[in-house]
Amino acid sequence: MQAALFDTFGTVVDWRRGIAREVATLFERHGVTDLDPFAMADAWRARYAPSMAEVRAGRRPFVPLDLLHRENLEAALSLCGVDPAIFPSEELDALNLAWHRLDPWPDAIEGLTRIKARLIVAPLSNGNLRLLLDMAKRAGLPWDAIMGAELVRAYKPDPEAYLGSARLLDLDPSEIVMVAAHNDDLAAARTCGMRTAFVLRPHEHGPGQNTDLAPEQDWDFVAADLCDLAAQLGA
Amino acid sequence: MQAALFDTFGTVVDWRRGIAREVATLFERHGVTDLDPFAMADAWRARYAPSMAEVRAGRRPFVPLDLLHRENLEAALSLCGVDPAIFPSEELDALNLAWHRLDPWPDAIEGLTRIKARLIVAPLSNGNLRLLLDMAKRAGLPWDAIMGAELVRAYKPDPEAYLGSARLLDLDPSEIVMVAAHNDDLAAARTCGMRTAFVLRPHEHGPGQNTDLAPEQDWDFVAADLCDLAAQLGA
Repeated sequence: MQAALFDTFGTVVDWRRGIAREVATLFERHGVTDLDPFAMADAWRARYAPSMAEVRAGRRPFVPLDLLHRENLEAALSLCGVDPAIFPSEELDALNLAWHRLDPWPDAIEGLTRIKARLIVAPLSNGNLRLLLDMAKRAGLPWDAIMGAELVRAYKPDPEAYLGSARLLDLDPSEIVMVAAHNDDLAAARTCGMRTAFVLRPHEHGPGQNTDLAPEQDWDFVAADLCDLAAQLGA
Repeated sequence: MQAALFDTFGTVVDWRRGIAREVATLFERHGVTDLDPFAMADAWRARYAPSMAEVRAGRRPFVPLDLLHRENLEAALSLCGVDPAIFPSEELDALNLAWHRLDPWPDAIEGLTRIKARLIVAPLSNGNLRLLLDMAKRAGLPWDAIMGAELVRAYKPDPEAYLGSARLLDLDPSEIVMVAAHNDDLAAARTCGMRTAFVLRPHEHGPGQNTDLAPEQDWDFVAADLCDLAAQLGA
């Protein structure tokens, strides 16, 4: 095994608390009191998959996730009964960058640092390069390279997202372990010939999470967190 | 200014000594005594620009630099009067990766580390992603991301190499300073709207170097090395 590629949102960083924190600041500034910031974070994230599906289906050319996030922000506000027009658009632009400022789970930096001593470590995320770069620089994530959907112009779980990333690393997919807290991501990676590591993140979606609470296939590794994965990889 | 992008071969790493060292090892193993390893390094490097010119001119689709280096290795041996067929092809494959194992100039790591505290730092090199990643991991180059020709499928000085890199960073070219020891690289970057920093590397081509000994335009910065550049950037 030569490389470990990591899903990022949910697997390495806690998007829900980070987004809710910045939503709360905006809502306080504008006196919005009838929408829970966590509900808004969930609504924003709920539009993530359908917005990428348009690109995956070829109904829309590839655009970076920052742009999808910005469109989804206004759509989610409207769906939650808050008129996006009450906010200056520069403030929505600034909130959109909250995805660049997410905090890692407590085990992430130690786990990645240990795995980096044995393998190439890089994100294989649907986030665009600048988003992942800003996130890493702020949080100190020790990636060897910033990879992901934008470099191969394909969103996971499109096979090209996995196969194109393997080509950029000049590796056979079997030399790569895909690390994710999401069974569907690992299923797609396995179909492409990658090895797979499931990391338990039972609070990614908050206290009521009812998805990805357990492995749904016999993944090559199942880990409680990234330090546990490092230990299993002998790192 | 938001980002500093660095030419790599010659500006950050000393390709000539690194290549000659590994050529010497191969030649010793096979009893080749009539070709100076430094002359072979120079001959190999001399085919670099013409091989990329085929891609830039559209006469050949984009291929990663590792492949051009591999072809150029055999061509350079032949030109120097050494039959490449005397070496097992696996040994030439291994030598080809010498470009992944180049040492940084003595000031490079300190200079990059200081500049990284103020700006995004990344290579904007014609090297492919895996080459630059291996180089950084071995030498400890503290890049925020691995960028370069392969991500935008255009070799410098094609304007797309500079403009595509700026797009990936979601920056206007004027927010980027291109750092290079080569006047032609900076001239192309300036045409694309980037700021420019010339770093003196008077021994890149050995004791007889007669190119790039001085700035040929009024570059925004002229620096003795990367620590001097860090100081000029207030880093």
